[in-house]
Amino acid sequence: MTEKKTWSDRFEGTLHPSIVQFNASIGFDIELIEYDLTGSIAHAKMLAHTGIISPEEGQQIVTGLEQIRSEYRDGKFNPGIDQEDVHFAVERRLTELLGDVGKKLHTARSRNDQVGTDIRLYLRDQIDQIRSLLREFQKVLLSKAEEHIETMIPGYTHLQRAQPISLAHHLMAYFHMAQRDWERLGEIRGRTNISPLGSGALAGTTFPIDRHYSAALLHFDKPYDNSLDGVSDRDFAIEFLGASSLIMVHLSRLSEEVILWASHEFSFITLTDRCATGSSIMPQKKNPDVPELIRGKTGRVFGHLQGLLTLMKGLPLAYNKDLQEDKEAIFDSVKTVKVCLEAATILLSEGLVFRTQRLMQAVAEDFSNATDVADYLATKGVPFREAYNLVGKVVKTSLASGKLLKDLTLEEWQELHPAFEADIYHAIAPQQVVSARNSYGGTGFEQVKYAIELGKTLLNSDRNKLKI
Amino acid sequence: MTEKKTWSDRFEGTLHPSIVQFNASIGFDIELIEYDLTGSIAHAKMLAHTGIISPEEGQQIVTGLEQIRSEYRDGKFNPGIDQEDVHFAVERRLTELLGDVGKKLHTARSRNDQVGTDIRLYLRDQIDQIRSLLREFQKVLLSKAEEHIETMIPGYTHLQRAQPISLAHHLMAYFHMAQRDWERLGEIRGRTNISPLGSGALAGTTFPIDRHYSAALLHFDKPYDNSLDGVSDRDFAIEFLGASSLIMVHLSRLSEEVILWASHEFSFITLTDRCATGSSIMPQKKNPDVPELIRGKTGRVFGHLQGLLTLMKGLPLAYNKDLQEDKEAIFDSVKTVKVCLEAATILLSEGLVFRTQRLMQAVAEDFSNATDVADYLATKGVPFREAYNLVGKVVKTSLASGKLLKDLTLEEWQELHPAFEADIYHAIAPQQVVSARNSYGGTGFEQVKYAIELGKTLLNSDRNKLKI
Amino acid sequence: MTEKKTWSDRFEGTLHPSIVQFNASIGFDIELIEYDLTGSIAHAKMLAHTGIISPEEGQQIVTGLEQIRSEYRDGKFNPGIDQEDVHFAVERRLTELLGDVGKKLHTARSRNDQVGTDIRLYLRDQIDQIRSLLREFQKVLLSKAEEHIETMIPGYTHLQRAQPISLAHHLMAYFHMAQRDWERLGEIRGRTNISPLGSGALAGTTFPIDRHYSAALLHFDKPYDNSLDGVSDRDFAIEFLGASSLIMVHLSRLSEEVILWASHEFSFITLTDRCATGSSIMPQKKNPDVPELIRGKTGRVFGHLQGLLTLMKGLPLAYNKDLQEDKEAIFDSVKTVKVCLEAATILLSEGLVFRTQRLMQAVAEDFSNATDVADYLATKGVPFREAYNLVGKVVKTSLASGKLLKDLTLEEWQELHPAFEADIYHAIAPQQVVSARNSYGGTGFEQVKYAIELGKTLLNSDRNKLKI
Amino acid sequence: MTEKKTWSDRFEGTLHPSIVQFNASIGFDIELIEYDLTGSIAHAKMLAHTGIISPEEGQQIVTGLEQIRSEYRDGKFNPGIDQEDVHFAVERRLTELLGDVGKKLHTARSRNDQVGTDIRLYLRDQIDQIRSLLREFQKVLLSKAEEHIETMIPGYTHLQRAQPISLAHHLMAYFHMAQRDWERLGEIRGRTNISPLGSGALAGTTFPIDRHYSAALLHFDKPYDNSLDGVSDRDFAIEFLGASSLIMVHLSRLSEEVILWASHEFSFITLTDRCATGSSIMPQKKNPDVPELIRGKTGRVFGHLQGLLTLMKGLPLAYNKDLQEDKEAIFDSVKTVKVCLEAATILLSEGLVFRTQRLMQAVAEDFSNATDVADYLATKGVPFREAYNLVGKVVKTSLASGKLLKDLTLEEWQELHPAFEADIYHAIAPQQVVSARNSYGGTGFEQVKYAIELGKTLLNSDRNKLKI
Repeated sequence: MTEKKTWSDRFEGTLHPSIVQFNASIGFDIELIEYDLTGSIAHAKMLAHTGIISPEEGQQIVTGLEQIRSEYRDGKFNPGIDQEDVHFAVERRLTELLGDVGKKLHTARSRNDQVGTDIRLYLRDQIDQIRSLLREFQKVLLSKAEEHIETMIPGYTHLQRAQPISLAHHLMAYFHMAQRDWERLGEIRGRTNISPLGSGALAGTTFPIDRHYSAALLHFDKPYDNSLDGVSDRDFAIEFLGASSLIMVHLSRLSEEVILWASHEFSFITLTDRCATGSSIMPQKKNPDVPELIRGKTGRVFGHLQGLLTLMKGLPLAYNKDLQEDKEAIFDSVKTVKVCLEAATILLSEGLVFRTQRLMQAVAEDFSNATDVADYLATKGVPFREAYNLVGKVVKTSLASGKLLKDLTLEEWQELHPAFEADIYHAIAPQQVVSARNSYGGTGFEQVKYAIELGKTLLNSDRNKLKI
Repeated sequence: MTEKKTWSDRFEGTLHPSIVQFNASIGFDIELIEYDLTGSIAHAKMLAHTGIISPEEGQQIVTGLEQIRSEYRDGKFNPGIDQEDVHFAVERRLTELLGDVGKKLHTARSRNDQVGTDIRLYLRDQIDQIRSLLREFQKVLLSKAEEHIETMIPGYTHLQRAQPISLAHHLMAYFHMAQRDWERLGEIRGRTNISPLGSGALAGTTFPIDRHYSAALLHFDKPYDNSLDGVSDRDFAIEFLGASSLIMVHLSRLSEEVILWASHEFSFITLTDRCATGSSIMPQKKNPDVPELIRGKTGRVFGHLQGLLTLMKGLPLAYNKDLQEDKEAIFDSVKTVKVCLEAATILLSEGLVFRTQRLMQAVAEDFSNATDVADYLATKGVPFREAYNLVGKVVKTSLASGKLLKDLTLEEWQELHPAFEADIYHAIAPQQVVSARNSYGGTGFEQVKYAIELGKTLLNSDRNKLKI
Repeated sequence: MTEKKTWSDRFEGTLHPSIVQFNASIGFDIELIEYDLTGSIAHAKMLAHTGIISPEEGQQIVTGLEQIRSEYRDGKFNPGIDQEDVHFAVERRLTELLGDVGKKLHTARSRNDQVGTDIRLYLRDQIDQIRSLLREFQKVLLSKAEEHIETMIPGYTHLQRAQPISLAHHLMAYFHMAQRDWERLGEIRGRTNISPLGSGALAGTTFPIDRHYSAALLHFDKPYDNSLDGVSDRDFAIEFLGASSLIMVHLSRLSEEVILWASHEFSFITLTDRCATGSSIMPQKKNPDVPELIRGKTGRVFGHLQGLLTLMKGLPLAYNKDLQEDKEAIFDSVKTVKVCLEAATILLSEGLVFRTQRLMQAVAEDFSNATDVADYLATKGVPFREAYNLVGKVVKTSLASGKLLKDLTLEEWQELHPAFEADIYHAIAPQQVVSARNSYGGTGFEQVKYAIELGKTLLNSDRNKLKI
Repeated sequence: MTEKKTWSDRFEGTLHPSIVQFNASIGFDIELIEYDLTGSIAHAKMLAHTGIISPEEGQQIVTGLEQIRSEYRDGKFNPGIDQEDVHFAVERRLTELLGDVGKKLHTARSRNDQVGTDIRLYLRDQIDQIRSLLREFQKVLLSKAEEHIETMIPGYTHLQRAQPISLAHHLMAYFHMAQRDWERLGEIRGRTNISPLGSGALAGTTFPIDRHYSAALLHFDKPYDNSLDGVSDRDFAIEFLGASSLIMVHLSRLSEEVILWASHEFSFITLTDRCATGSSIMPQKKNPDVPELIRGKTGRVFGHLQGLLTLMKGLPLAYNKDLQEDKEAIFDSVKTVKVCLEAATILLSEGLVFRTQRLMQAVAEDFSNATDVADYLATKGVPFREAYNLVGKVVKTSLASGKLLKDLTLEEWQELHPAFEADIYHAIAPQQVVSARNSYGGTGFEQVKYAIELGKTLLNSDRNKLKI
C-alpha cells in the first residue's frame, strides 16, 4: 500500500487504505491485460512511425511489452491492489524493465483513451466468439429440424393447442431468432470497432500523432471523429448488453418450452443423463436444471443492461470515474451469454430426445383441426365468420359427448352444413392439416423443407466470405 | 357490454363485466386504426389478387375500409370498450356496411398476424419521424457549433477542469451521438420492416395466399420466413426501446450540462424566457425546467425497455396474450422520445445564449494548461512521466501562492527545469492550448472546422438519396 | 396559451408554445385535484389558526375551495394546458372567486411542499384500497382452500412431479404471499404518511406556521423533521413501486400456474366462460387471457420501479423538476395493481373449476411417492442416503418395465431390502403420503386445516381493530 | 469430474463436463459455508432432540461439522467444482469423517429448505452489519452538522440558488434519509428472519421433526407457516435489494453534490489527499473519484434488483433451479452497499474540507433573499401573490443595473411599495434570512440545533436497547 502513486507531485498526503481498495480496478481489469498490451504496442509503433519517439525507443518498448505478455502468460506478472489498475501496472513494469524509455510510452495518450481502446478490442473479440457460438447453436437446430420434418407436435397459442405443426417448423423459429441475434451483433461490432486511441484525456493531443495509423494496426475500421465522444461513448457497450438481453430472451423461451416438454404432463421429450440432475431427497427425480438455469440467468443480463443505462444517465462530458463500472457488467454478460449458448447447444444435441410416437399421438387427440373445418367451409363459399361460428358449435357438442371431430359421421357433418362431403375426413387428418398450411413461411412440409435448405445455404455461405 | 363477442358459438356464458374491461385493448390500440385499415386493405387486395375472393368482393371491402377511415377521421367512428380491440371494431363495422362480404375479410388471417402487421407499420412510421427529428437536432447543433468555433470553454473530466476546448468541439460530440442514434434506428427499421401478414394464428394458412404480394403493397422489405416467429417476434420493439433509451442517455447528458451551465456558479449560459420558468414563491428564480424534465423522462424509457424484456422472458411459442402489453410501452416511448427531441432542439436554438465573454475569461483563470507544460517538456526530450511530476510540483506551489502558471517568471520556469524558454508563455495561452490539439478528432480549431464541414456534407447527402 | 403565467414579473418573453405543452403536468396531475383541495383547506385552516390570515379570510378560502370541489365533481371545472398544473389551476380559480383573498392561500407554502402533500394523500388512500383488495384476494384463496383440503394435486419442483400435496396447501402458499404484501404495504403506509407541508420551497418559512396542526388535520402521523428532505424525498414512492412489483411477482406466479393447469396436457382446471376468451380464427379455442394479461402486466410495474430509481439517481438537493415525472409511474402502477388483484380474485372465484377427479387420478399414476419409500427405510434404521440410492434403483427398473411402485409385489420389495413389510403399500398410497407430511407447515391434512383456521382468525381480526 | 454424484442410482450416464461446470454453484456458494454448518448443526440437534437420530449420533454429527468448520478456517477444506454445491461438499466430507452416521444428517431435510436457511442466516448477518455502517455514516453526518450549524450555504432548487440555508441543515437531510434506510432494513430483517428449515423439498416431511426447536436454535423469529412458500419465497431478497437501491439513491445524491462542490465553479469544498486521485496526464488534476465511483455503482445495485425480479416473474411453485441465481445478486449487492457506505463515511470525515469563508461569501452575493422581501410585504398585509410579482420586477431591474437587493436605497424600496421601512435591510441579510425560517424542520438555526439534539438522542438510544 505504501507504493507511490503514478500521479503527480501535486499530492502530499496518502490515500486512506480503504479508499485505495475502493478505487482499484486491478481486481477485474486484469482481464484486459492482453488487449492493453496489444493497444500499447500499436501506440508505441505509431509514436515511432511519426517520429515522436525514436525507432530504437519504439523497438525497445515493443520488446518490453511483449516480455510482459510472456511474464503474464507464465504466471510471473501478478500485479496487486496497490497497482490501482492494469494500465499503471503495465507502465510501471515497463519502466522497471527499460528505465526512462518506459516512461515515454504514455506520451500523447491518456488512460481515458487507453481504457476505451482496451475494452473495444476485448468486446470485438468476444462478439466474434459469441457469433460463432450462435452459429453452432443454429447448426444443431438445423440438424434437429432436418431429423424432424415429418414429426408433428401440437402448435400452441396461449399455451392452448391451436394447430398441429411440424416439429422442424417449431425448431426453425429459434433458428431465425438466432439469425437476428447474429446479424444484430454484426452491426454492433461495427459501432464497437472504432478507435478512441489518440483522443487523449478528452481533447486530443499536441503531439503530431497519426490516429489512422494506430487504428489500422489494431484493425479498427476508423478513428472516432470527436475526441470528447471518443473517451465518453459507451453506446457500444449498452448496445451489446441489449443484444445479449435479446439472446437471453430467446434462450429463455426455448428453455421454458423444454421444461414444459420434460414435464410428466407433456412428456414430449426424455431428458438424457447428459444434462439432467437429481434431487437430494427424491430418488425418482430427473430435473431439467440446464434450461432452468438458463432461464434464471436471463434476469442477470437484463440487470446489467439496466445498470449501465443508469450509470450513463446524466453524466456530463467527458470522462467520469463512473465509467470504470462498465467493465464488470460487460465481462459478466459476455461470460453468461457464452456459457448459456454452449449449454443450450449441448442440451439440444445431447440432452434431450423427442418422444416421436407420443407427439404423433398428441396431434390426433384434440380439436386443433377445427380451423381446418372452418377453412373447408370458407373454400366452399361460406363466409369465414359464419363458418367459424358453426364449427364452434360442433366443438361444444363434441366435447360434451366426448367425441373428436374425426369421429363424427358424414351424416352428422351434413346435418351441420350441406357443403360437407366425404373429403372432410382427409381435410382434418393431422398430416393433411399440417401439409395444407403451405403458404410461404407456413408449417406445410414443403415449406419447412425449403426453409431448411435456405438455412443450410445461409450457414454455408459463411465459409465463402470474410467475417463482417 | 351485452354486445355479442366475435368469437365462436363454443361459448355459452358471458364474460364478467370487469374482465371485459380488463381484457379490452381498444382504449389504447385505437392509436393503430389507420395502420389497421391500411393493412386490411392490402390483405383484401391480396385475397382478390389470388382469387380467394372475387375482384368485386375485394373492391367492396376496400371501399368499405376507406369509408371507415373517413368516418374515423370525421370523428364518427368511436368504438367503445365492448368492441374488445380495434381489429374486431373494424371488422364489425365493415360487416354492418357490407353484410356477408364484410365477413370474408378475415379469411386466411388471424388477429395474431394482423396486430403484428399493424404495430410494425406504426413503428416504421414513427422511426422515420424520429430520424427526422434527430436530423433537426443535429442541424441546430451544427449551426450552434459553427457560431462558436472560436469560443473556448473549459473541458472537464471528473467535472474538474481538464483542458480548454472549443465550444464547437463540445457541441459536436452531441452531433456524433445523434448520428449513431440515426444510424442505429436505420438498422432497426430494417428489422421492423418485415411482414408477418399471412403467418395466420401461428402456422400459416391453407389458403393459396401470396405473402410477397401483400408485403409489397405495404412496402415491407420481405415476409417473415417462419410463421411462428412471425407472430411471436417482438425483437424489433425491444430494439427500438433500446435505441430510444440511448437517445435519452444522450439527451440526459446534454441536459445535465445545460443545468450546470445555467447555475449561478457556472454562469456559462443565460436561459431565455422561451424555455425557462419561475417559482411559485421565489420571485428571482429562472428554472431550467426543460432540461430537467428531459433528464427526468429518461428513466421512463429505460423502464419501458425493462418492462418489455420482462414480458418476453420465458414466453413459450407462439402468440400469448401477454404480448398485448407491448403497445403502451411502445406508444409512450415514441411520444417521449419525440417530445424530448423537439424540446432539446428548441432549447438549443431559442432557449439559451452562451455567455461568450464569461467563457473566454473562464479558460484563462485556471490550471487547465498544465498538461501543455508537460507536453512542452516532453517535446524537448524530457520523459513524459518525469515532466508530468515536475509540473505537478509547480501547480502545488502556485496554488499555495495564489498564482497561475502564466504568472510565473521565466526565471522561475528555468529554475524548475533548464529546458524552459520564452516560448513557454505562448505554449500555455488558452488560444494556443486549444489550437495545438490538432490531432485528428481533437479540439484544434482546424480540426473542428473540418469536422463541421464533414457534418454539413453528411446532412446534405440526405437530400440526394432515398430514405434508407 | 396567451394566459399570463403565475410566476413573477421578472419574466418578459413568453414560453415557446411547444414548451408550454412539454412542461405542463395538468394532463395527468388533475388526478390529484381532490387531494390538492383537501391539502389546501388544511393549509388555510392552519393559516387562520396561527393568525397569519384572519379567521374570516380562512373561512372564505375554505368555502371557495369547497366550491371548486363541487365544480370539479359537476364537470364544470376543466383546466386546460395553459394552466400548467393543478396547483396553479386551483389557485387561479380561487382568485377568480375571491379576489385578493384568494391570493393569500399560497402564503407560507410552495408548490414543492404542496405537491409532496398531494401525492402522499393520494398514495395513502390507494395503499388502503390495495390492502383491501389483498384481503378480498386472500378471502377467495381461503374459501377455495377450504373446499379443497382433501383434494390432492401433484406438487412440483423443477416442474417435475415431486410429492403429492393437498390442493388447499398449494393455494395457501399464495395466501401467505399476499399476507406479506399486506404487511409490507402497512409499513410503507407509515413512511408515506408524513407531512411535508410547511417545508416551503426547501428551507421552511418565515411565517409562524404550525406544521403539527396541518399534519393533524390531514391525518398525517407527523411532519417531516427536515424541510429539504421533506420536499425531495421520494423513498415512499419507490418503496410503493417495490411492494407493487412483489404483488405482481406473486400474481404472475399464480397466473403461470393457472395457464399450465388450463392446458390440454395438465387439464387440472376448466376455464369458465366468465374469464376465458376465444380466438378470431380457431373455433375450438378457450384462452386463459386473464392470467396471461396479469403475467404480461408484471413487467410494466417493474419498469416503473426502474424508471423512478433512475430518475432519483444522482439528483442534487432539494427539489428538481425531474420529480414531476414520479406521478405517472405511481398512477399507472396503482391502476395496474388494483385491476390485476381484482382480475385474479374474479379468476379464482368465478373463472375456473378444479377437475377434482382428474387431480385425484394424477397423484396415483407417478413416482412421486418415491421419497416415502426412502423415508420408510430410514425409519427402519437404514441411513437416509443409502435408502435413497436404493429407491433410485427401483424407480429405474420400474420405469423400464412400465410399472409403478404400488405394483411391486412384497417379494420384490423384500428382495430389494429385507426391511420392507406389508405396511409399505399403506405408506405409499397418495392419501397416506400427504397425510404423513404432518410437520409444522407441511401438507399433512391436519396441518392444512390448522393453517386455514389461522388464516380465518387473521382475517377476522381485521374487523376488531382499527386500520394500521 | 469422475466423482460420483450424490443423487440416486436412477442415473446411468454421466453429465457432460461443460454441464457439470454450468450447474455447479460451489464457485460462489462457498461464501455460505459457515451458515451452512451452523444450520446443519441446528438440524442435527433437532434430529437428536426429537429422537429421529440417537443422542450419540447427534453429538457425532455436531462434532464432525465443527471439525469441517475448523478445516475450512484453516484453509484445509477446499471443495472443487466436482462437488456441485456447498451442501453436498459438506455432506460428503462429513461422511468421510463419520461413515454411515454422516449419511443421517440429511434425514428430514432437502437442499431446498437447507439453502433457504443458509441464505437467510447470511442475509440477517449482513443486514445487521449494514445497519451498523448506516449508524457510522449518521454519526459523521451529525458531527459534521454540529461543526457547521452557523455555516451558511446556498440552498438550491432546480440547481438554481433558492434560499440560503445552514450547512448543518443540508447535511441533516442525509441523516434522515439514512435513518429511513436503517428503519426499513429493520423491517426487512423481520421478514428475513423466518425459518424455512423443515419445509423439506416442498411439502414438509414424514419425520416427527420440531421446526420451532431448530428455528429457536438459529435465533429465527418463527418457522414459515407453509412449506411451499418456505422453499420458494424470495421476497426478502428482493426487498433487501430494494432497500439497497434506496441506500444507493441517497449516496448517489450526496456524491453528486460533493462532485459539484469540488468543481472549480462551486469551490465549496477542498478535497484532501485521503480520497482524491490524480490524472495520468494532467498534473494539475485532483479528481473526486470516490463520489464518482459511488454514483457509478448505483446502477449495479438497481440492476441486481431488476435481475431478481425478472428471475421470479412467472415461476411456478415450488422450488426451481432458477433460484440458484439469487445468490450472486445478493452477495454483490451486500458487498457494494457496504463498501460504498464505508467510502462515503471516510469521504465525509477525512476526504473533504468545507471552505467556510467561500460559502459565507456565496450566500451574500445573489438574489436568494428575494422570497424574504415578498414575505416581508405579505407580513405587512400585501397579498402574497402581489408581493411576489412586485419583487420579481425589482430583481429584473436590479440584475440589469448590476445591483443586489441589499444595495437598493430605502428610497428605492419605498418607491416600489410604501410598506417598506428601514428594517428591510435586516430582513434580507443572509444571517437573518436563515434565522427567520424557524418553522418546524426549517433551516432556522434554532431548529437545526434542535434537530441535531434529536439526532444525538436517537443514536444514543441504540446503546440502551437490544437490537431490533
